[in-house]
Amino acid sequence: MSVSSRPSGGPVLIVGSVALDSVRTPFGERAEALGGSASYASVSASFFSAVRMVAVVGEDFPEQHVAEFGRREIDVSGLQRAPGKTFRWGGYYEYDMNQAHTTATELNVFQDFRPELGEEHRRSPYVFLANIDPALQLSVLDQMRRPKLVACDTMNYWIENAREKVLEVLARCDIALMNDAEARQLSGEVNLIAAARAVLNCGPGVVIVKRGEYGAVMLTRESYFAAPGYPLEEVRDPTGAGDTFAGGLLGYLARGGGADDAAIRRGIVCGTVMASYTVEDFSLGRLLRLEQQEIAERYHEIAAMTRFGGF
Amino acid sequence: MSVSSRPSGGPVLIVGSVALDSVRTPFGERAEALGGSASYASVSASFFSAVRMVAVVGEDFPEQHVAEFGRREIDVSGLQRAPGKTFRWGGYYEYDMNQAHTTATELNVFQDFRPELGEEHRRSPYVFLANIDPALQLSVLDQMRRPKLVACDTMNYWIENAREKVLEVLARCDIALMNDAEARQLSGEVNLIAAARAVLNCGPGVVIVKRGEYGAVMLTRESYFAAPGYPLEEVRDPTGAGDTFAGGLLGYLARGGGADDAAIRRGIVCGTVMASYTVEDFSLGRLLRLEQQEIAERYHEIAAMTRFGGF
Repeated sequence: MSVSSRPSGGPVLIVGSVALDSVRTPFGERAEALGGSASYASVSASFFSAVRMVAVVGEDFPEQHVAEFGRREIDVSGLQRAPGKTFRWGGYYEYDMNQAHTTATELNVFQDFRPELGEEHRRSPYVFLANIDPALQLSVLDQMRRPKLVACDTMNYWIENAREKVLEVLARCDIALMNDAEARQLSGEVNLIAAARAVLNCGPGVVIVKRGEYGAVMLTRESYFAAPGYPLEEVRDPTGAGDTFAGGLLGYLARGGGADDAAIRRGIVCGTVMASYTVEDFSLGRLLRLEQQEIAERYHEIAAMTRFGGF
Repeated sequence: MSVSSRPSGGPVLIVGSVALDSVRTPFGERAEALGGSASYASVSASFFSAVRMVAVVGEDFPEQHVAEFGRREIDVSGLQRAPGKTFRWGGYYEYDMNQAHTTATELNVFQDFRPELGEEHRRSPYVFLANIDPALQLSVLDQMRRPKLVACDTMNYWIENAREKVLEVLARCDIALMNDAEARQLSGEVNLIAAARAVLNCGPGVVIVKRGEYGAVMLTRESYFAAPGYPLEEVRDPTGAGDTFAGGLLGYLARGGGADDAAIRRGIVCGTVMASYTVEDFSLGRLLRLEQQEIAERYHEIAAMTRFGGF
C-alpha cells in the first residue's frame, strides 16, 4: 500500500529485535514468521511518522521481509546483516491469551549485536528502545545527540537478570513502558498504582502500564489516564501487541512534534488501535494490510465507547 | 450524616443477603462485621434514591446495624428477623485482592428465607436482585407488579449448581451484572466480549461485566462502554465492591427515572465511584462515613482521567 497519506514527522529511531517467530495459538500456528519487537514497533510507527530501524538479522533472513519494511518506507540502513542465523523465538498461547508460554529462544546473531549508529541516526529526535538487553539500550543512548524524547520498554527477563542496567535505562528515559507484571516485579509493589508510582520514582516523567485486553494506564506526577482495550471477539495471535502499541504511541508523538499530557493520551489511544489490529492475525499480517483510514475509524470508536455525560 | 441532600427518586427494591462477615486482608481483619450483598447495595443506592431492603437476619443481628440502615433512610420494613442465627461469611484475601478465599459459609436463617413482599414493595419501579439463590430471585420477580427496570447479579456457586434457574432470571432481567469469571463460566466462552455477548443472548438488553481493579464494561446490542477502575494505591478490603457498584448504578438510574444508554453509562461511573470508597475500609465503614459531595468529586476525577482529544 502507499504511505503517501502519512504526515511528515519524526523520524523516530527504533532499536530492538527482528526475529523469526514460531507461534501456536488456539486459532492456528505459524513457523518462522516475521516477528521481533523492532519489527512490530517500526511497522506500527510507520503509519504516523518516518522510522529508522536499528536491529540485526542473520544470513537466513528472507529478503521479502526487508522489502516489506521498505514498502512501509522504513529506513533499514541501520538493519545489520551479520554472519549466522537470525534470532528465533518459539512459543504458544492457550485460551488465556494474556499469557505467552516460551518454548524456545535462540539468540543467534543477537548474541554479539552491538548497535553502531551513523551520524544521521544519532540525530534522530525520537527514540524508542524496544525490549532488548538493557546494556544495548544504554549503548544506543550513549550514541544519541540530545534526542527530544526517549521511550523504553523492557521485560521480566532483564528485570530479573540485569536489574541495575534496567534502572539505569529508566533514569535516562522520558517514557517508560511495561506491562503490569513487570511493573510489579520491578517495584516489589503488588498494587498496580503503587507499582507505577515506584517506577515513576526511578526517573521517567511518564509511566505507561500495558494491561493486555484491559487496556493501558498512564501515570505522571500530575496526571492519570486510563484507556480501555479495544473489544475484540477473536484474538488470533497476541504476539507483538505491546511492541505495536509502543510503536503507534511513538510514531504519533513524533508526527505531532509534541509530547505533552494531551498528546501522550492521544498517542496511547493510537497505540491501542494499532495493537488491536495486530492481534487479529498472526505475525505482522494484519498490520501490513492495514489502511490508513482504518486507524481513524477505531480511534473514533474508542472515543465513543469511553464517553459519558456529567454527574 | 443527613441524607437530606438526596434527590427524590426510586424507590429501588433490593433483595439480597445481610451477613456478619469475618474478613482478613493484608491490612487487618474484622470479625462479624456488617456485610452481605443487600447491605452494600442498599447503602450505596441510598446516596441516590429511596431504597427498600428485603432480606433476613437472625435474633443475634445487632440493632446498631439496623439503626445504621435507618440513618441512611433505608426502608427496612422488608428486613425480616427470623429465629436462629444471622448468615455468616468468612474469608481472606492475599496480596492479590482480586481473589477472595472463602473459609466459611453459614447460611443459618437464609436456609429457610422466603421473601414475601407487601403490596407497596411489589409496586417498586426499580428492582435489584443481588446475589442470592436464583430461586429466591425468581420468587421476588413473581411478586412484582410490572417494575420499570429489573437488574440482577449472581455468582459462580449458582451458575454451577442452579444453572437453569440463573438462565430463567436472566431472561426476565433488563440488566445483568456479573464479573468476568462468571460471564466466562456461564457462557463457556473464554473471550470476554464473546462471553458478554452470549449472556446478552440469554435475554437481558444490557450486560455489565465487573472486572475489579480494571473497571467495568457494558455491552448492549448496539453499544459498548468501558469504565476504568478508580486508581487506588491502597485497597484495604475489596469485600462488597461489586454489590456497592450495583447499588450505585441502580440508585442512580432510579433517581433519574430513565435507563437509556447514556444514563446507564453515568450510572456505571457512579457505581465505580461508590465501589472505590467501599474498598478503602473494612465492612461498610467508609460508605457509612461518605459525604454526598465526595461522590461528585470522584465522578469528575474519572471524567478527567478518561478524556482525550480527537484524532
